[in-house]
Amino acid sequence: MTASATAPEPLPVTAAILVIGDEILSGRTKDKNIGYIAEYLTNIGIELREVRIVPDLMDEIVAALNALRARYAYVFTTGGIGPTHDDITADAVAAAFGVTIDHDPRAVAMLSERFPAEQLNEARMRMARIPAGADLIANSVSKAPGFKLGNVMVMAGVPSIMQAMLDAVAPSLETGVRILSDSVRAGLREGDIGTALGAVARAHPDASIGSYPFWSETGPDTNVVVRSRDAEKLKRAMDAVKDMLTAERARLANL
Amino acid sequence: MTASATAPEPLPVTAAILVIGDEILSGRTKDKNIGYIAEYLTNIGIELREVRIVPDLMDEIVAALNALRARYAYVFTTGGIGPTHDDITADAVAAAFGVTIDHDPRAVAMLSERFPAEQLNEARMRMARIPAGADLIANSVSKAPGFKLGNVMVMAGVPSIMQAMLDAVAPSLETGVRILSDSVRAGLREGDIGTALGAVARAHPDASIGSYPFWSETGPDTNVVVRSRDAEKLKRAMDAVKDMLTAERARLANL
Repeated sequence: MTASATAPEPLPVTAAILVIGDEILSGRTKDKNIGYIAEYLTNIGIELREVRIVPDLMDEIVAALNALRARYAYVFTTGGIGPTHDDITADAVAAAFGVTIDHDPRAVAMLSERFPAEQLNEARMRMARIPAGADLIANSVSKAPGFKLGNVMVMAGVPSIMQAMLDAVAPSLETGVRILSDSVRAGLREGDIGTALGAVARAHPDASIGSYPFWSETGPDTNVVVRSRDAEKLKRAMDAVKDMLTAERARLANL
Repeated sequence: MTASATAPEPLPVTAAILVIGDEILSGRTKDKNIGYIAEYLTNIGIELREVRIVPDLMDEIVAALNALRARYAYVFTTGGIGPTHDDITADAVAAAFGVTIDHDPRAVAMLSERFPAEQLNEARMRMARIPAGADLIANSVSKAPGFKLGNVMVMAGVPSIMQAMLDAVAPSLETGVRILSDSVRAGLREGDIGTALGAVARAHPDASIGSYPFWSETGPDTNVVVRSRDAEKLKRAMDAVKDMLTAERARLANL
């Protein structure tokens, strides 16, 4: 065999999300960022592997951040970069990396675009505190920037601002091969196809096959989703799923 | 001082959520359970301290579960207890606890209420696999039960079923003193009040004070939320917040 015949699949680029905020854990605020970031990363070829939500406590943020940044190619944080006393994410990131943190002239300049000098008070100046060595992430919505330090992207918790920051930082990220996916509606209940679907999954280890039950207008039904980085492997697995579904529908109709 | 004058506050009862499912990490399915469970636990006096989302991989589920169950009073899992090959939560829980797992006659009986014998195939019988020593959690929606093993509650991922299971298991849980909360709309931007609010927070360490910016019909505004287990401490902190807001509004009007 030649090397070209066995070209290795590119390594996946992995990521984690760290959501920071008491208000998410109390249930007062319902997170809208995890699902958005998950879908966004999938679409640009980055694999989200883990999510954690932690409270506004320095030790908790530092411990979670250090666990995640050591393990995944990228970590995206949301929340805790506003102007009040409970906004401690920037300080926690500096502590996790063991670097200093101070008012960053570039961040002050960005804030000055929005706030006249007399409004740039101590609280708002908190939003210009950036760990040493970080690159800023522009905030087209409300100016106060996020930042990128090492493999960690620090973003706002307000969804519209987070989304703008994700758009701003995404072009600078390394991405892998996008995971392709295809889905088919089974027209059968999940429990009717589970055994046969497991056999298809074992026969196609290069594809990831998931089944998701839902209630349709005609009763319980199932979506089967096949995912792979390779279009040919995806097609072979999906063809096998569809053949299995045809056979199972016939078998069940004849019971 | 007498003992009664310094009656200790009851210890909080803590919890974590472990969400299990590739479909959440890919963004295909948007989680609806975290916010629901968070609010539910807050209302019954259990403090949610951490959430993790992990993929349908045995080692990942076992590692996260063992980390969380050692640290918090309760762990609530969602997802991965259906009839297909990627539903491995029950096996992962058994592995984490080091116990065996097999078809449980009580669970088979529950499934038999819904499925006639000819439909109780190998796939559906997967849903009767329960780790040794677990108590079942009834499922009033679709019969296949969840279970409680030690301090871990294993629930379905489908929101309606998860909610029924949470209702079923909640009465058996130890609960702490419910955290009381009160909120006030500042009528000011977060950055206008940040410094003064920080001073109030430092003066009231027994209350947790958070601020949440939002866009109202009249422009940027802020909700200030005060939380405490003690009604008197909550009131004192909220009074201080309101006095501060009155002073800040007057100060800013005179600028």
